[in-house]
Parts: sequence; C-alpha cells; structure tokens
Amino acid sequence: MENSRFLRACRRLPVDCTPVWMMRQAGRYLPEYRALREQHSFWEMCKTPELATEVTLQPLRRFDLDAAIIFSDILVPVEAMGAPFEFIESRGPVLEAPVRTAAAVERLRVVEARETVPFVMEAIRLLRRELDGRVPLIGFSGAPFTLASYLVEGAGSKQYQHVKTMMYAAPDIFHTLMRKITEVVISYLDAQVEAGAQVFQLFDSWVGCLNRDDYREYVFPYNQRIFRALAGRGVPMIHFANQAATLLDLVRDAGGDIIGLDWRIDLDTAWEIVGPDRGVQGNIDPILLFAPVETIRNRTARIIRQADGRPGHIFNLGHGILPTTPIDHAKALIDAVHELSAR
Amino acid sequence: MENSRFLRACRRLPVDCTPVWMMRQAGRYLPEYRALREQHSFWEMCKTPELATEVTLQPLRRFDLDAAIIFSDILVPVEAMGAPFEFIESRGPVLEAPVRTAAAVERLRVVEARETVPFVMEAIRLLRRELDGRVPLIGFSGAPFTLASYLVEGAGSKQYQHVKTMMYAAPDIFHTLMRKITEVVISYLDAQVEAGAQVFQLFDSWVGCLNRDDYREYVFPYNQRIFRALAGRGVPMIHFANQAATLLDLVRDAGGDIIGLDWRIDLDTAWEIVGPDRGVQGNIDPILLFAPVETIRNRTARIIRQADGRPGHIFNLGHGILPTTPIDHAKALIDAVHELSAR
Repeated sequence: MENSRFLRACRRLPVDCTPVWMMRQAGRYLPEYRALREQHSFWEMCKTPELATEVTLQPLRRFDLDAAIIFSDILVPVEAMGAPFEFIESRGPVLEAPVRTAAAVERLRVVEARETVPFVMEAIRLLRRELDGRVPLIGFSGAPFTLASYLVEGAGSKQYQHVKTMMYAAPDIFHTLMRKITEVVISYLDAQVEAGAQVFQLFDSWVGCLNRDDYREYVFPYNQRIFRALAGRGVPMIHFANQAATLLDLVRDAGGDIIGLDWRIDLDTAWEIVGPDRGVQGNIDPILLFAPVETIRNRTARIIRQADGRPGHIFNLGHGILPTTPIDHAKALIDAVHELSAR
Repeated sequence: MENSRFLRACRRLPVDCTPVWMMRQAGRYLPEYRALREQHSFWEMCKTPELATEVTLQPLRRFDLDAAIIFSDILVPVEAMGAPFEFIESRGPVLEAPVRTAAAVERLRVVEARETVPFVMEAIRLLRRELDGRVPLIGFSGAPFTLASYLVEGAGSKQYQHVKTMMYAAPDIFHTLMRKITEVVISYLDAQVEAGAQVFQLFDSWVGCLNRDDYREYVFPYNQRIFRALAGRGVPMIHFANQAATLLDLVRDAGGDIIGLDWRIDLDTAWEIVGPDRGVQGNIDPILLFAPVETIRNRTARIIRQADGRPGHIFNLGHGILPTTPIDHAKALIDAVHELSAR
C-alpha cells in the first residue's frame, strides 16, 4: 500500500502516472448515490457506517480512482459539540441556533471524537477491510475557521458578516471558539488515523474571504497547531484552502505535505509559491466537466504540463464535483489524467 | 474640478490627502435611503432621475466623500437589451427567462443607451448641476462577463455553472453574447461621459470565478475593447475586477487608469503587480466597518502605509458597503483616511 501511486505522490516519490481523485467523488452525480439517498436522509447516510461505506465505494466501482475518501460531512464533529443542524434541501445544513455570544461559545463542548462520533471511525474500519489494499483511504475534517464560520453564520454565507464581526469586534470570544474547535478537530483526525485513514485532508473551504493579516492572526495558529499535533502520526497531510491564492504561502507555512489548489491560480505559479519541498493537489475547474471531452483532455494536458513531471502532484478538481456532472465526462477526466501523465 | 483631490489622484498627481469614496455609498445603510425606498421600488428609484439624484446625494450630505457615484444598477442596460428582471427582496434581481440558447442570444438587442435608458443620462445631468463642482461624479457599468453571467444564470450564482458551461461547450454562442453586451456597454459609458460623468468604473464583479486561460480567451478582448473605445474621451477609467487577485496583471493589461482591489491581496503587493504607471483603488474589507473605531483606524493606517505616499491611490472598500453598517463607523473610516494620509 505504501507503494501505491497515491501515497508515493504524497511523499513526492516518482510514480508511473499522476494519481487522481475528485473532491465529493461520492455524491449526487452518481445515480446509485441518488437511489440510496431516496431511502435515507443525508445525516443517516453519514451516521450509518454500512451506508457511508457503500457510498464511499460507489465511485471506485465506476472509475479508476487512486484514492477513496470517507463519505461524511464537515459538520459531523460540530454537531457533536452541541450545535445541532437541520438539513434543508435547497440551503444545505442550517444551524438551529447560531453561536454568536460568549455564552453560546461557552456552552460548546470540547468532545472526544472517538466517543461522540464513533460511526465515522467504524466506517473507516469497514472501508479498510472492503478496500483490502486496492487504494488508500483519505480521512478529513473541516478546518477551524470554516467550522467556526458555519457555527457563527448558522448556514452557508456570502459575506461572512457575523463571523468576521465577531473576529473584529469580539476577538476574545472568537479565539475561544477557535481553540475549542481546534481541539475537537485534532481529536477527530487522530481518531480517523487510528481507525485506518492513510492520509487526511483539512478543508478550509471558506478561509478565502479573509485578508492576509486576519489569516495570520486568527487562523494560522490554529491550523498550525493541528498539523503539528498530527505530524507524528506518520500519514501524509493535505491542506486545502479554497479560493485562497493570495494566502498560499501562509497556508503552506501553517502545514501540510500537499497543498490543495483551486483553478484560479495556475498550478506552476502556485507550486512556485508553495516551494519544492511540498506537493500540490489540483486544480481543474469542476465546471470543465460540462465541456466536450476534447476540451476536458486539453485542459487536463495543460495542468499536467504545468506540473512538469515533478514528483508530488496529485490531480484533483479545484472544488467538489457538481451534482449534474455527466458521469462519462468524469470518467474521461480520470482516464485522461492517467493516460496523459504516463511516464 | 480637474484640480479636485479625486481627479488628481486618478491622474497620479500629488494630493493633499488620499481621496475616498465607498462602493454602494448610496444605499440601504442610510436611514434616509430606506425612507425613500419605502415609497418607491428599487427600479423606480433607478429610473426616475430626480430620485436617483436624491439618493446619489444622500451620503455626500453626511460624509466628507471625495466623489459621488450615480445611483443605478448594473442590470439597467441588460434589461434594455430585452431581458426583463423581477426584483425579489431576498434574492436580488431575477431574470424572467435566462438566456441559454443561440436563439435567446440572437433575440437580445444591441441597443443605443441614449435612447433606451435616457433616465440615467438625465440623472447625470441633474447631478452635475446639483453638485456644482463640489466633487466629481463617477459613472459606471457592469463588465461584459458579469452581465453575461447574470443573463445566463438568471440570478446571482455560486458556481456560475450555466455561464461557464456555455463558455466551454458552446463558445460561439458565448462570444456572440459577449460581443453584443460589449457594444451596449460602450454606448452606455459613452453616453454617461457625454452627459457629464467625469470618471467611470467598469465593475467586473463576478470574473473572479475564472481561471487565467479563460479570462484571456473569453473576457480580456471584450474589456480591452471597451477601454480602447473610451480612452479618447479624456475621463479617467477605473477597472474593478472582484476577487481577481490571480488575474490582476491581465486585468491591468485589459485597460483602466486605476485598478480596483479587494482586501484579499495586500495593496502594496497588488500595486507591484499592477505597475507604477497605473493607480490603485481600495481595499479595506467592508466588514471591518463593524469593528470598533480604533480597529478601523488601525487598518486604514496600514493600507495608507502600504500605499506609501505614491500618487494614484484612491481609498475605497474592497466591496460594497453592507446594509447593516453603523453610519458613524462609515464616517470614522472616511475621516480617518483624510486625517491619516494628510501630507
């Protein structure tokens, strides 16, 4: 397994061709996912190890993917802290009561993931047995700022007004919130690795709304703490900050063996910023999967050229695959990556 | 007037202190705006020169702003092309029928702004009289990609799936759409300048969703055409591409005397990319207006330090002011800019 294409690339070792996986590869664009989803709620699928396992494996039956990623939601550990969500189809998860005061932050529990969300670890154990060495399994967690945003905004947000206002106007409350979340994230990722996750990705999906000063002061120390706490576990760590091209050097300094990229920055420019001692992951626009296959192949070739054969490139989308993506186009992308990067 | 602080900064001439205006400075954060809005619909306010004039002047009565900007909406010329919108309070403008086919693009009219939206020019003439040389008046238009996005998506969007899919899968239709919009934008800005706008800003609010290749191929030629067509009119041109730090060199090459910046990139780093032969505008996060006044002043001072006294800096927010912004904080920002930058 350590010799798999994916884990070798994570360690910047030469590979036969570039490994590829897709963010949200287990999801609504697959009819077999939608069929299961008709019978079970989203949370039920996250919380039932057998269902999470089945959904995780679905894309691997169709495509030549180089890694599996545990099916779950970044809000699973947040809910466990004492912030219940409702899942509203058109809006995604909506918090029953946004966390906006010192008292509300105080009430959040610093939980031990092994005890509060054991179903995730159980799914990881099941998956390792099912995968049986075929491809490595990725665990993941939302990063503290992204989770804090969800908690304070109470739902998806365009402006991040409430979380930033807390940050600017009540920095002590904000820091307390970040400290609590950070402890939970560490315990959550640690439990996933212990259960069998062979890599993990920290998703900082919303951090791109911040300026560099704010990232340095309010985010960096917490992400750094997570990577430092888990560095000794011996698994490669992927750090993906979405829409964060202007923060890339800071993101790298916070930690991670592989730095995730979205499509807004050219991969070669980004790798230059990230530096030669880290790998990069990315970075095709998921909407390119709606283009004709020839265009998909041309853009894939361009990204592979930008990586220039350097060890340490993992191919991925720059964001999650969209629910209406044509399946044969997803397959065309994955096959193109392998074919066009073959050494 | 040519000697005003604002116009001198637009031409990169020395000024007594840094000029400042705020995107969406005429808007819902002002009680006098909300009072008027209770009596008139949003479109009525855009389309009635006396109302647009009144709303444009409101913030100037409260604050020491260095420029006025005509109150209007970027969709005004789009509607005139034959794409009616409905204004839905919680969602903003929603198109009655999204433009997604060759036939729909074909039906759009390349209108002459003087004839189809004369009320904008009338408001500009009224405003010039009312302002009577107090501060310069800024005209504006949405940029072609931003307007195309609205037309194709039919409303605000998170993923820009439909417009990008048209771009990737039906590039001919997309280019036809962009050509038509570009002609309308040129006629619209030309008419505004003729009516008395002393500066204009091209707002490319949504272009930050694109990668560099797509910007080069699908956006750059159209924005360049607009700036070239209007360069001879003798008014300074501001080019603001939102969330587009990774496109900044291309944005500059497309045109504009002043390049607008959001807060995601440090102003000094951005000015380095933009180059010394252009000015820059920006770039405080509008959510910083919810911070204590001391924090607002500290951040303002930091941006002024980054500009380092170089002629050609216009202070602004990195995005429109939010409806719940405390008015005294807006005033504190404007006063801080003048005070902290006084030569």
